[in-house]
Amino acid sequence: MCGIAGVWNVDEAYNVIHDVLLSIQHRGQQAAGVVVNGFHSVKGEGLVENVLTDEKFISGNKGIGHVRYSTYGSLDEIQPLTAHTLKGRISVAHNGNIVDADEKRKFIMESGGIFSTTLDTEVIIHYFSIAPYESPKESLQWALSRIKAAYSLVVLHDSFLAAARDQFGIRPLFYGKFHDGYIIASEDCALRTIGCDEITEIDPGTIVFFTDNKAPEVVRFAKRTDRFCSFEFVYFARPDSNFYGVNTHEVRKMLGMKLYEEYSLKADAIVPVLDSGFSGALGYSQISGIPLEYGLIRNHYIGRSFIMPKNRQEIVRRKLSPLSSVLNGKEVILIDDSIVRGTTMKIIVDMVREAGAHKIIVGIHSPPVIGSCNYGIDTSRRSELIASNHEIEKLKEYIGADELMYLSVKGYREVFEKIGVRGVCMGCFDLNYPI
Amino acid sequence: MCGIAGVWNVDEAYNVIHDVLLSIQHRGQQAAGVVVNGFHSVKGEGLVENVLTDEKFISGNKGIGHVRYSTYGSLDEIQPLTAHTLKGRISVAHNGNIVDADEKRKFIMESGGIFSTTLDTEVIIHYFSIAPYESPKESLQWALSRIKAAYSLVVLHDSFLAAARDQFGIRPLFYGKFHDGYIIASEDCALRTIGCDEITEIDPGTIVFFTDNKAPEVVRFAKRTDRFCSFEFVYFARPDSNFYGVNTHEVRKMLGMKLYEEYSLKADAIVPVLDSGFSGALGYSQISGIPLEYGLIRNHYIGRSFIMPKNRQEIVRRKLSPLSSVLNGKEVILIDDSIVRGTTMKIIVDMVREAGAHKIIVGIHSPPVIGSCNYGIDTSRRSELIASNHEIEKLKEYIGADELMYLSVKGYREVFEKIGVRGVCMGCFDLNYPI
Amino acid sequence: MCGIAGVWNVDEAYNVIHDVLLSIQHRGQQAAGVVVNGFHSVKGEGLVENVLTDEKFISGNKGIGHVRYSTYGSLDEIQPLTAHTLKGRISVAHNGNIVDADEKRKFIMESGGIFSTTLDTEVIIHYFSIAPYESPKESLQWALSRIKAAYSLVVLHDSFLAAARDQFGIRPLFYGKFHDGYIIASEDCALRTIGCDEITEIDPGTIVFFTDNKAPEVVRFAKRTDRFCSFEFVYFARPDSNFYGVNTHEVRKMLGMKLYEEYSLKADAIVPVLDSGFSGALGYSQISGIPLEYGLIRNHYIGRSFIMPKNRQEIVRRKLSPLSSVLNGKEVILIDDSIVRGTTMKIIVDMVREAGAHKIIVGIHSPPVIGSCNYGIDTSRRSELIASNHEIEKLKEYIGADELMYLSVKGYREVFEKIGVRGVCMGCFDLNYPI
Amino acid sequence: MCGIAGVWNVDEAYNVIHDVLLSIQHRGQQAAGVVVNGFHSVKGEGLVENVLTDEKFISGNKGIGHVRYSTYGSLDEIQPLTAHTLKGRISVAHNGNIVDADEKRKFIMESGGIFSTTLDTEVIIHYFSIAPYESPKESLQWALSRIKAAYSLVVLHDSFLAAARDQFGIRPLFYGKFHDGYIIASEDCALRTIGCDEITEIDPGTIVFFTDNKAPEVVRFAKRTDRFCSFEFVYFARPDSNFYGVNTHEVRKMLGMKLYEEYSLKADAIVPVLDSGFSGALGYSQISGIPLEYGLIRNHYIGRSFIMPKNRQEIVRRKLSPLSSVLNGKEVILIDDSIVRGTTMKIIVDMVREAGAHKIIVGIHSPPVIGSCNYGIDTSRRSELIASNHEIEKLKEYIGADELMYLSVKGYREVFEKIGVRGVCMGCFDLNYPI
Repeated sequence: MCGIAGVWNVDEAYNVIHDVLLSIQHRGQQAAGVVVNGFHSVKGEGLVENVLTDEKFISGNKGIGHVRYSTYGSLDEIQPLTAHTLKGRISVAHNGNIVDADEKRKFIMESGGIFSTTLDTEVIIHYFSIAPYESPKESLQWALSRIKAAYSLVVLHDSFLAAARDQFGIRPLFYGKFHDGYIIASEDCALRTIGCDEITEIDPGTIVFFTDNKAPEVVRFAKRTDRFCSFEFVYFARPDSNFYGVNTHEVRKMLGMKLYEEYSLKADAIVPVLDSGFSGALGYSQISGIPLEYGLIRNHYIGRSFIMPKNRQEIVRRKLSPLSSVLNGKEVILIDDSIVRGTTMKIIVDMVREAGAHKIIVGIHSPPVIGSCNYGIDTSRRSELIASNHEIEKLKEYIGADELMYLSVKGYREVFEKIGVRGVCMGCFDLNYPI
Repeated sequence: MCGIAGVWNVDEAYNVIHDVLLSIQHRGQQAAGVVVNGFHSVKGEGLVENVLTDEKFISGNKGIGHVRYSTYGSLDEIQPLTAHTLKGRISVAHNGNIVDADEKRKFIMESGGIFSTTLDTEVIIHYFSIAPYESPKESLQWALSRIKAAYSLVVLHDSFLAAARDQFGIRPLFYGKFHDGYIIASEDCALRTIGCDEITEIDPGTIVFFTDNKAPEVVRFAKRTDRFCSFEFVYFARPDSNFYGVNTHEVRKMLGMKLYEEYSLKADAIVPVLDSGFSGALGYSQISGIPLEYGLIRNHYIGRSFIMPKNRQEIVRRKLSPLSSVLNGKEVILIDDSIVRGTTMKIIVDMVREAGAHKIIVGIHSPPVIGSCNYGIDTSRRSELIASNHEIEKLKEYIGADELMYLSVKGYREVFEKIGVRGVCMGCFDLNYPI
Repeated sequence: MCGIAGVWNVDEAYNVIHDVLLSIQHRGQQAAGVVVNGFHSVKGEGLVENVLTDEKFISGNKGIGHVRYSTYGSLDEIQPLTAHTLKGRISVAHNGNIVDADEKRKFIMESGGIFSTTLDTEVIIHYFSIAPYESPKESLQWALSRIKAAYSLVVLHDSFLAAARDQFGIRPLFYGKFHDGYIIASEDCALRTIGCDEITEIDPGTIVFFTDNKAPEVVRFAKRTDRFCSFEFVYFARPDSNFYGVNTHEVRKMLGMKLYEEYSLKADAIVPVLDSGFSGALGYSQISGIPLEYGLIRNHYIGRSFIMPKNRQEIVRRKLSPLSSVLNGKEVILIDDSIVRGTTMKIIVDMVREAGAHKIIVGIHSPPVIGSCNYGIDTSRRSELIASNHEIEKLKEYIGADELMYLSVKGYREVFEKIGVRGVCMGCFDLNYPI
Repeated sequence: MCGIAGVWNVDEAYNVIHDVLLSIQHRGQQAAGVVVNGFHSVKGEGLVENVLTDEKFISGNKGIGHVRYSTYGSLDEIQPLTAHTLKGRISVAHNGNIVDADEKRKFIMESGGIFSTTLDTEVIIHYFSIAPYESPKESLQWALSRIKAAYSLVVLHDSFLAAARDQFGIRPLFYGKFHDGYIIASEDCALRTIGCDEITEIDPGTIVFFTDNKAPEVVRFAKRTDRFCSFEFVYFARPDSNFYGVNTHEVRKMLGMKLYEEYSLKADAIVPVLDSGFSGALGYSQISGIPLEYGLIRNHYIGRSFIMPKNRQEIVRRKLSPLSSVLNGKEVILIDDSIVRGTTMKIIVDMVREAGAHKIIVGIHSPPVIGSCNYGIDTSRRSELIASNHEIEKLKEYIGADELMYLSVKGYREVFEKIGVRGVCMGCFDLNYPI
């Protein structure tokens, strides 16, 4: 996962991109980069506030930016990527993956081409360069139509700014009007925060070109076949973001409600596992009538401590305070969006039990992950590549819960059907992949 | 308000104090300081993570630390304060105020004494120095018995570590056992986070001395007359802190419930004004049966943005996202612990109304502040130095709420009576001050 | 001008390159970069000590480095440059210019190739990639034989380290043995400082390949036609560097002596214009018998001052203290290697006169620059693109000297003939260019 | 040794003090501090450029500053020192020592006084506070007349700026007119660099008070008995500084000449041991007719290198390049101002011999140090606390020189007599101390 941003015809473009990236910082905390007019760039590893610092002097009224999540690509390969071509200078930042990137790199290198990075982004630039057109716009269109990919991307060229989504619309992308210009961002909450009007969700399979003195020009390069990543709704995006006009917090609440519908388990209190489980827990609480409680309190500072705990158990214990006044003598349902690492959930269950809870039910408001993702989501570290009910039983025992509820794939699908977002990808849950 | 910490006979004292101060960082974000064995110190303006950096090399197994809230005292006057006296070296950090500090400074200076700061702390050191005893312990006892003050303090001397609370116990102070040593902190949550056992709330009017190879020695210097600051319960302390064995989150919930008891106002949803109102909102929701809702979402990054909004209205709008899917068409009750600035609440009410709420009730789960505080709380910037119902009515109109509920002083007192914490100070609410 | 460095089979390669670059920091202070095993890189604008900081952790036993002088190339284009090719990864740092770089870039781009920078270095990499050989070594040989250039360069490839000089040997390059490995540097003083044995000056027109377990392999790619830049002797290189076995300080002394031979001007004292004129002044003093004097003292701190002088005159006055005890009532000869800006020399002459000198002769121990340089020397800012004696006369008047001596081209050439360095380039003095 | 500065009625006082301290940075590189109007201070360990950074915002038109040489006093005790007294706020920075500081501290502490530092400066402030006068000026006068000390100091008080020298004038102090105000500095070169007019050397035994709208007021507090530290002339001060109207570079040249007069040793070349020996070497060269040569070249970067040599020998070898073209086959005289560590000189002699010199004479243009200094000079680390000719002979053998010349005390004294600076202290050479 990553986050991207763009700015067209807005004063202090660098500062605006900085602010947009701050709003989507949760999409990538490994590295950040910005390119503005003249293709001047500022890049570095780490958080936006640490990388894009002391550089407010950069003038310019257009540019693109990127925050990177994964450690895919070596650490000095930070987007946006810029190149000089016969068709002008071009800079690209993208969120997603090119599925056949290795083949395409080989094809380019066999013709003598060189790559300065291992990023998929550079394949896009090479295809732009070799496209059989003189026009930069047509070249970009040709390049995107040739590449098997699941991405959203922003492109800065000498003559335009562009924003594009693959035909499946796997990753989100929005633009909004800002004074006389436009701002692009991975999530609409960033556009609302900055103060944009008329926010538009970019159509899968299209490029939106921003050029001087014109309304944005939408060009289709592939047939739209919606397969939006349902994980964005479940936990990537901020609760105040919307996709297909639907608010993510509301979807999470509905998933929590659906979980209650499927299991109907009762208890004395619903306790969200911090922020990620809050919306789902609220749904479960409202439909079940069981009171929501504030039973786990986060210590924000743990990352800064000098005396680092030696093991995961101590780390989690430093990070979370269970409130025994809330938990003592209770049957509680812990709600979270997923179980990334069973070890963490096991420690939480232990802590809650030590704080006096005498029955602990763990409820997850999405189905177990059973397959990997090729479209930009890192599912490899999930402890829950779980293929059978037998394995769920073993996981329950491992984490020490009295009950472990996962939402069914059917129930999960029903929620998305109900809210009218039919074209979602649930490949990691049901192995039904778009490409 | 400030936070203090101490460490006795614990390896890597500097690092441990750093970690304790991180846990009580919310008590003071203006400056931080640490003094360890040999009276080596690290101090500076700003957050703990920025001040106490790159200094892990400092060895030592004892020391004290401080985080400062106010801008009282010039900016380079950062605690702990260290001095050389005939009775040895001494370093002091305190949380609170000396009520007759000016008189006492004058008295010292008239005898030729000099002050290197304007801090009250230095008065304590001078009284220690002029005390008619040779013994450092007796001198400290004498000094504290002579000073009219409302404080908690930690003292590092060549021959001991000490922790003390004034006779009213206005500010909190705890110590806990850690391996073969002890750790002191303003709030018990910090001690639990670091992993202490046997946590003890220090008795008002006593000094606890930590010396080699001994159990802590408790010495009384004044009669105990509990007047613990009730604001600590209402909003200073962390929700996982306890005073008098009572959890602050629970007290806040009870205050929220009491608010419903007093007004019995109904609505479609209870919306906490962020973290500070969450516990109270939960209480109101549970007793009233009105669902809690996640209607205002905080944008964490606002402090870091480059394009700073010009006015408070825009700042608040950048900081908070109202969720219209939650608020639209609803009657909502916004719950907060207090109204520090009416301007902010006014903007929040506006935003909630724009998001579609058609009735907005504001509920505050403490009484209006009608007097100032001389014991370390900065009440001067409160918009609510409010003396009559007439003024509450005007405030309601100003903020644009349909209703404005304040908890009554009577109700507030009843909550503290009910939980058995009788000796609290409510001077700012009822003008009944301890000194 | 720039400086380059390389390391083969030496522990802590990163640290060693750092130290070598420090020794040749005078060759470039705009930017610095290092690439080591695995093509990990650290780069940035500024001095070596500011850029290559806190990075000692980088392991590896081979690598290359660069310090950049000019502002040619945009500021984020810092060498070494790394690329992925079908023939493996390759990283290049060079000192010099490709004369037909624009043509060659166009040629590459017309075949669809892209450039990620505007650096000449990238042309070399493209030629390596398109070379009609599978072998990386043969490909590098082919690339260098195809490019019209005046350079020294270092190359790190997956399978070798290489060092090369163009056929004219315009820029210097040396390597030395260090334990079981080798170190490469632009100047031999850096190799001696680090502790190398068996220092070798690389033959113009050859590549030296360093591969595992072998002696360096020297491969010729062009006929040797020595045209070493005589400016290196005059002022680029450090006084303890040697080229062709001849020490630069000695050459400067001889140039100073030759100046006296040509003019035979007498005075009371010889005053070097700081470090750059010291060697020449010593030569003039020794042959003339006129005492050398310490008449101008440098204030080292000027670059750090807060109260910046508004004009060049004040800047120079802050930078230099004339010693009136030395200058008062004297006839003095100021010796420098060149006049880069007449304005500075004018201010110096003024100051020396104010300090009491009643006659001031300015002696320059190289000829006037009459042409520009295409091989890596920035002559554009020289005030002395001077074509006639008439112009020298005008310059003398401008700077306010009583006499202005320039060494003749003939005298200059004679010195180089005498020391046996016949194949030097004096293009900027005599318009006789190698390419 | 230390350096002090003061500013009265000059805009941007902070910036001006910063610049003055930069000019006298050579007097102390351990710590730096500034106090300006309102007694706002910036302090820290390290160089001026690192400590006094990013603080240009400090307004004010008066202040004092300090650079510290020694590690005397713990590292967080950085001058200027500020205190609040009944007579107003006062801040002091000094260069020198209080001879009976321990007694005076004890006296103050026995009356109940406290010290926040171990600095002598604080004794001065206490004496100011206890002085039996109401007037701050009279109190300062009284304090200075009561203290046995060898110092220069600057004082900032609410109502004045003062500069003072002890009765012996051991340490230097100057002030100059700057626009409508005054600037004070330890050396006159700093005042000339900043652009002062009418530079005045402060009379030993006087305080100069700067108050509003007045000419400086000179007040004598002790009889003048000149005993100026002769080490200032020999090596502390910059070559462009003057004391008693005599230039230090000229004195060093005369000391070099005197050395030749005493020994009349001949050789092929005079080689200064870097900057410190340059002036003396020039004197020896001029009077003897032996050419000065540039035989040892400093590598400036050594302090920044990552691969630190393990022993002193390697460190010196990295720091210095001997030029064999200059030294080979020669008899050379190495000139330095002193031998601080015999180990360093031994390595230099070795290097020069390895570079081919076949006879090496070491000449020191001051006498051997035979006693310690109580007035602010750290003589403790000198290898040359040498009491007899026998020991000089042993030192010669140790360093491996063929001859070792020290200037005689008689010759040294004659130079100072000749230039008319009679009242110098040579205590460390002749054990004749002023106090």
